[in-house]
Amino acid sequence: MRLSRYFLPVLKETPAEAQIASHRLMLRAGMIKQAAAGIYSWLPMGFKVLRKLENIVHEEQVRAGHIPMLMPTLQPADLWKESGRYDAYGPEMLRIRDRHDRDMLYGPTNEEMITDIFRAHVGSYKDLPLTLYHIQWKFRDEIRPRFGVMRGREFLMKDGYNFDVDHEHAMHAYNRHMVSYLRTYERMGLKAIPMRADSGPIGGDDTHEFLVLAETGESEVFYDSAITDLSLGNRDIDYDDWDQVALICNEWTKPYARTDETHDAGLFEKVPEDRRRTSRGIEVGQIFYFGTKYSEPMGATVNTKDGEKVPVHMGSHGIGVSRLVGAIIEANHDEAGIIWPEGVTPYHVGIVNLKQGDGEADRACEDLYAALTRAGFEPLYDDREERAGAKFATMDLIGLPWRITVGPRGLKAGVVELTSRRTGESEELAPDLVVDRLRGIYAGHL
Amino acid sequence: MRLSRYFLPVLKETPAEAQIASHRLMLRAGMIKQAAAGIYSWLPMGFKVLRKLENIVHEEQVRAGHIPMLMPTLQPADLWKESGRYDAYGPEMLRIRDRHDRDMLYGPTNEEMITDIFRAHVGSYKDLPLTLYHIQWKFRDEIRPRFGVMRGREFLMKDGYNFDVDHEHAMHAYNRHMVSYLRTYERMGLKAIPMRADSGPIGGDDTHEFLVLAETGESEVFYDSAITDLSLGNRDIDYDDWDQVALICNEWTKPYARTDETHDAGLFEKVPEDRRRTSRGIEVGQIFYFGTKYSEPMGATVNTKDGEKVPVHMGSHGIGVSRLVGAIIEANHDEAGIIWPEGVTPYHVGIVNLKQGDGEADRACEDLYAALTRAGFEPLYDDREERAGAKFATMDLIGLPWRITVGPRGLKAGVVELTSRRTGESEELAPDLVVDRLRGIYAGHL
Repeated sequence: MRLSRYFLPVLKETPAEAQIASHRLMLRAGMIKQAAAGIYSWLPMGFKVLRKLENIVHEEQVRAGHIPMLMPTLQPADLWKESGRYDAYGPEMLRIRDRHDRDMLYGPTNEEMITDIFRAHVGSYKDLPLTLYHIQWKFRDEIRPRFGVMRGREFLMKDGYNFDVDHEHAMHAYNRHMVSYLRTYERMGLKAIPMRADSGPIGGDDTHEFLVLAETGESEVFYDSAITDLSLGNRDIDYDDWDQVALICNEWTKPYARTDETHDAGLFEKVPEDRRRTSRGIEVGQIFYFGTKYSEPMGATVNTKDGEKVPVHMGSHGIGVSRLVGAIIEANHDEAGIIWPEGVTPYHVGIVNLKQGDGEADRACEDLYAALTRAGFEPLYDDREERAGAKFATMDLIGLPWRITVGPRGLKAGVVELTSRRTGESEELAPDLVVDRLRGIYAGHL
Repeated sequence: MRLSRYFLPVLKETPAEAQIASHRLMLRAGMIKQAAAGIYSWLPMGFKVLRKLENIVHEEQVRAGHIPMLMPTLQPADLWKESGRYDAYGPEMLRIRDRHDRDMLYGPTNEEMITDIFRAHVGSYKDLPLTLYHIQWKFRDEIRPRFGVMRGREFLMKDGYNFDVDHEHAMHAYNRHMVSYLRTYERMGLKAIPMRADSGPIGGDDTHEFLVLAETGESEVFYDSAITDLSLGNRDIDYDDWDQVALICNEWTKPYARTDETHDAGLFEKVPEDRRRTSRGIEVGQIFYFGTKYSEPMGATVNTKDGEKVPVHMGSHGIGVSRLVGAIIEANHDEAGIIWPEGVTPYHVGIVNLKQGDGEADRACEDLYAALTRAGFEPLYDDREERAGAKFATMDLIGLPWRITVGPRGLKAGVVELTSRRTGESEELAPDLVVDRLRGIYAGHL
């Protein structure tokens, strides 16, 4: 993309309403614009990141054997009356009446609707196990929306639902979700720690939240630092292998890690003192096992091998996709702006032309742009007639992890400069070595 | 995908509520399930097709230089009061009040919101031309929703908005949209004919609708059969080349083609009699030029080269993405089921194992499945223990364009059978020739 043809409305001033870094930086970097309290338009660069996260979530869910579908944003109230949650949910549910005076609502979650789909179509244990998920906009009418996309009202969520014949199978689905979530966050460059959680309004017996460490997190967290050393790396995971999946979950849930809601000071003291950490965290996902809580009242049953009719065991599992954009920025920024991890950056590399209009510099930039594009990269070329300082400031603000600086002086010496946004370190190299250098950097991310 | 692990709830009976083929077939093939009147869940196979269409639309819009973003589903009423449409829109607008008693609405379209974004960020002719678009769920509270996804209430639409400095530039944007739409429909295997249209409630000076010929279409259409012979094929289109783009538009708008709303019997009679056609059509898109209709009341202006402040010239351009799923089926089905065009089929090829459990047949199917997957195809393998007849009926119903039949008798002769869903014709070939044969068939679609 050439900046001269893009729509990247960066702001010079810091908007007064923004209290936390990610909100400030998303506004300043031209990623979002508020449409109403807690409701945002995603401007082109914001949308690009959001879409990347959505694709990563899809890929990892499909890899785990979960099946994508899509439920609508609006739901009939009747379903929620059946489960008993219509009255229980409170004012965060956006209630709507259509032109025929039918009660509707903007879905805050989809347990009822997916259970309705299941009971209409599935009747035998032979159709299990089954995990369906979707990525769809939800609405929660927060009384005080704030922190930008971190606590918005209209938000994009992945929610998945497993249907299993018994508790044992459902616990494998639970474990499968935990592992697929760990992979998802790792690809996004995040350390997200699973922490035993309270069940909250959805109800549940087993539940973990995934928290990203960040000063601005809404929860206080207590953990054994050993957990932050864990990594899935390139492990080959067979999601049908109950033991392998359970072992990974065990690895991640053995070190102490809890939020203030479930913190147990006595247990925490058993962690060696030099590994005890207290910090704050942002919740970016949650997994629940809730058994037959919805299948019983809603009549979602299957016939077992023995011809017995039993309610299915279910769980629901969510990833806050739009919120993740904010969480990634909270965990990856400095004074000058955002620092995107390689796995989620909207563009892989920025090209700064120090002397737009100079024949040689222009040509070198065009050549690099073409070569990078051919190699499968998405470069962002700042081809505007601007001072070098302004171009650098924009690149630092929008946070592409790598920048190539091209100027007449360097070209005379046969080099361009490659700079890491994270470390600030630069190296000079011949223009025709840039593609290979970036291929190495982005291995596994293209 | 293995059918034993998929969620494809096909129905044996034809649902009584479905009046047209696409609605019937989408229900029977397990693509959708009604959640409320005019509101549907997209079950896995339906979602897969929807997502394919969405991706094609994205690719062709980006190719035309249009920039993707995403606006929210809910909008503040204030914006619509500014343009004067809040009261004018009528009961099809779903009006919502939030917990703070603020008037909101579920967006039926986005002229106001995009104009608000534009005026907040753009002030100079230097930032033009600019075309922004998004693909987002919309809501129109139809009094009598019917025909499944063809006239639903919650529907997925691509809507794009061009901002130009004057009428001449805006007309190039109009033409660019026409050509990008022609390419989009062609990739989907559709003949969509641009027809001069009435402007309707959005208002506009120049406007064309795109209609797919189908008996169940809501509009009567009159056209010169010469237009159905036109094809873009592999033409190399430079969307910055005003003349090339205008010439293509000229080619497609010269033959007579109008809906009953703008039909001119006198003009129609000048078409040679043997080329005069009357039929019915389904609207799958529309392009509008409406000048300064929104930019003037909402103050969306730019400074020109001469320092003059002028309201921008705009147009809006829509493709009914969810409706297209229905339209494609209306134009591509027979008594037995759907017949997907190669460009949009949810799976490229079905594999039918005539004797599940037979060692050799199972192995041949697994080998084919693996080879096809490695080659970049998505096969759907019917690995259930079902009669051959039931497997064929399912394949015919869901409409994958190609089917491979694998059975012990054929394998003994060293062959499997490849069958075209469209023609019903079969050919026998050695299993290891299947991948190459399908590569030829799907050239340009993978």
